[in-house]
Amino acid sequence: MSFFKVNHRSTRSKARLGTITTDHGVVQTPAFVPVGTKGTIKGLTQEQIKDLTIQLSFVNTYHLVTHPGVDVLQKAGGVHALAKYSIPLMSDSGGFQVFSLALRQKEQRKARVRGEEEPLVEKIDENGVIFRSVYDGQKIIFTPETSMDFQVAIGADINMAFDECTYYPATHEYTEKAMNRTHEWLKRCITHRELEAKNPTNHQSLATNHQFLYGIIQGGTFEDLRKKSAEFVVAQNTPGIAIGGVSVGETKEEMRSQVKWVAPYLPNDRPVHLLGVGQVDDIVDLVTQGIDTFDCVEPTRVARMGIAYQTQAVLAYLEGNRGSYELDVNKAVYKSDLTPLDEKCNCSTCVNYSKAYLHHLFKQRELLGYTLLSYHNLSVMERLLQEIRVQIGNDLI
Amino acid sequence: MSFFKVNHRSTRSKARLGTITTDHGVVQTPAFVPVGTKGTIKGLTQEQIKDLTIQLSFVNTYHLVTHPGVDVLQKAGGVHALAKYSIPLMSDSGGFQVFSLALRQKEQRKARVRGEEEPLVEKIDENGVIFRSVYDGQKIIFTPETSMDFQVAIGADINMAFDECTYYPATHEYTEKAMNRTHEWLKRCITHRELEAKNPTNHQSLATNHQFLYGIIQGGTFEDLRKKSAEFVVAQNTPGIAIGGVSVGETKEEMRSQVKWVAPYLPNDRPVHLLGVGQVDDIVDLVTQGIDTFDCVEPTRVARMGIAYQTQAVLAYLEGNRGSYELDVNKAVYKSDLTPLDEKCNCSTCVNYSKAYLHHLFKQRELLGYTLLSYHNLSVMERLLQEIRVQIGNDLI
Repeated sequence: MSFFKVNHRSTRSKARLGTITTDHGVVQTPAFVPVGTKGTIKGLTQEQIKDLTIQLSFVNTYHLVTHPGVDVLQKAGGVHALAKYSIPLMSDSGGFQVFSLALRQKEQRKARVRGEEEPLVEKIDENGVIFRSVYDGQKIIFTPETSMDFQVAIGADINMAFDECTYYPATHEYTEKAMNRTHEWLKRCITHRELEAKNPTNHQSLATNHQFLYGIIQGGTFEDLRKKSAEFVVAQNTPGIAIGGVSVGETKEEMRSQVKWVAPYLPNDRPVHLLGVGQVDDIVDLVTQGIDTFDCVEPTRVARMGIAYQTQAVLAYLEGNRGSYELDVNKAVYKSDLTPLDEKCNCSTCVNYSKAYLHHLFKQRELLGYTLLSYHNLSVMERLLQEIRVQIGNDLI
Repeated sequence: MSFFKVNHRSTRSKARLGTITTDHGVVQTPAFVPVGTKGTIKGLTQEQIKDLTIQLSFVNTYHLVTHPGVDVLQKAGGVHALAKYSIPLMSDSGGFQVFSLALRQKEQRKARVRGEEEPLVEKIDENGVIFRSVYDGQKIIFTPETSMDFQVAIGADINMAFDECTYYPATHEYTEKAMNRTHEWLKRCITHRELEAKNPTNHQSLATNHQFLYGIIQGGTFEDLRKKSAEFVVAQNTPGIAIGGVSVGETKEEMRSQVKWVAPYLPNDRPVHLLGVGQVDDIVDLVTQGIDTFDCVEPTRVARMGIAYQTQAVLAYLEGNRGSYELDVNKAVYKSDLTPLDEKCNCSTCVNYSKAYLHHLFKQRELLGYTLLSYHNLSVMERLLQEIRVQIGNDLI
């Protein structure tokens, strides 16, 4: 069974239907990938994740290495076993968070001089990053090699090569330097994984499932760099390709451009993931560029603020009608509104509960509200992706 | 079908097996009554409540009248419809919270003089209490009559007469005055309900289910007053009897005494509820005094702090072994402990998750932790009560 198979290519665009096959199950693409940063999609039980028919979830290596830590992950046999996930998982490289922290290094130095706080990042160079855990002060070193080892300990089915996610705005000079570093790191990730496969260390010997590596295309907001990076990364022949750094600080137009620049370079026989991007308009627009999977925290993040997606308005994006699809249940107008949260949704939240009850739960900061709206928003995302797959199958997208 | 039926009386004590029959289902007694103050057992969905086989849940009239408010409750057709409860519910009278607020009245006056805050309680006398909603400044009046009307709007199957819960410590003189007021209020509650039944107002016409009133025995820490109150309340022939005010500030011994003083006066053909009491030792000891139902926030409150009940230690109370039954998953010793939360429990939390994962969730303040531990602790309480019912059936208690 191959890792990725294209089942249908739209006659209208680069959109395609595919299947990603992992030891933990099959993912029908295009797919939305809900984020469960610390090994939990916030507020949802594994039963609820199954009920939602979520196909693939995203975990963050930086967070999991910081807590519960590699030792616990190794002892448990990975995050699947620890958190009882039965669906495929995708882990990032840690690079995004590590470099976000690095950005704050200068401020941290100043703080150290003033004796105000301990710096989190101790050192950053071509080799990688050394930082201190906020939990126990322990030094954690992120390099291409340790990122690979960490991701083995986590045991997700899909892994990302260690990359530098360029901050925004950055100069062409700096972005090129960072891109070249990311390319070197990709080669080191591949080499490390090959060596580990030949001579399993303690880390490798714990991986009980196949793990598929994605190289990450960087290059910031510069067309020449993005294309150069796409060429380089695609040539490395990793099982999948990711596009990174397009969600950091830019406008939607810039983001779309970055994806469109690299689209012609993407392989047509390997899956493509777009890191950290996945609002409704992004997904609808970018499946046509050949993007297969999208991870994004937004549906669950806004759910915890009381924002409920509206199915009809979400699906209208497929018809080109791009209005607001967010209903804020905190609004006073919903205090006594006994209609379902979303008339067009048949998830358990919408079948059972009214806007008035959810308004009450949010006004009272009741835990149940966060769970019910997270469940609903992810249900709407699943519905959108189902519809997208149907439309691609019918060459409508 | 009668409201309450005794199916077996222990030969060893006043303990008994009974069934409480309501329009929303049957409750096997003795039963533990988890508290869902604001119309939600914190962190649990209705599916989870069903899975736990919770028979009866408790809601607080003061909180529900304050938010979402009587208008929303009436429009929805009660809290069953609003929150999608399919199990029987019990509501309190609001008296406990109203008088807790009244206690703070003096401080509030001082604050008003200093211009610091608006007082919540505006007036308190024999007739009742006027206070202002913290949500919209609206005046809410609690009297025996309005408490009955509020409880009709809420629509719980079992209601409490409006009572004054004496603060602790209180003098004999004050306690007697408060008790007499509670007795007068009970008569007014009964009269009001009879009048409403004859001439349904808007309030009454919304009640779609039978509602059974419990008179509340008060009398504080004084034996003579408790006995006098028991005699008076039992003589009023309400469908059930509650014992109030035994959970406020006293020692466990005092609390037990208060229940034992009134036990001989309790009717043997009507159900008896003990308000706000329900730790493991309380339940094990007080079913022998003829208590049928117990409500208590503790299992879910401590769950949200990371405390997991341990089945073996809880059930050991039935054998007279009274050790600690609380495991604190926050403790560092559980960081890499992959054993189940509770080896003797087969709830979904314990079947699926380890102490290490729950430790991780609590250290990271992840919502899922609160849900999983709340679920577990209520599962242990259900297990305890099942075992108690079996032992009563076998005359072992």
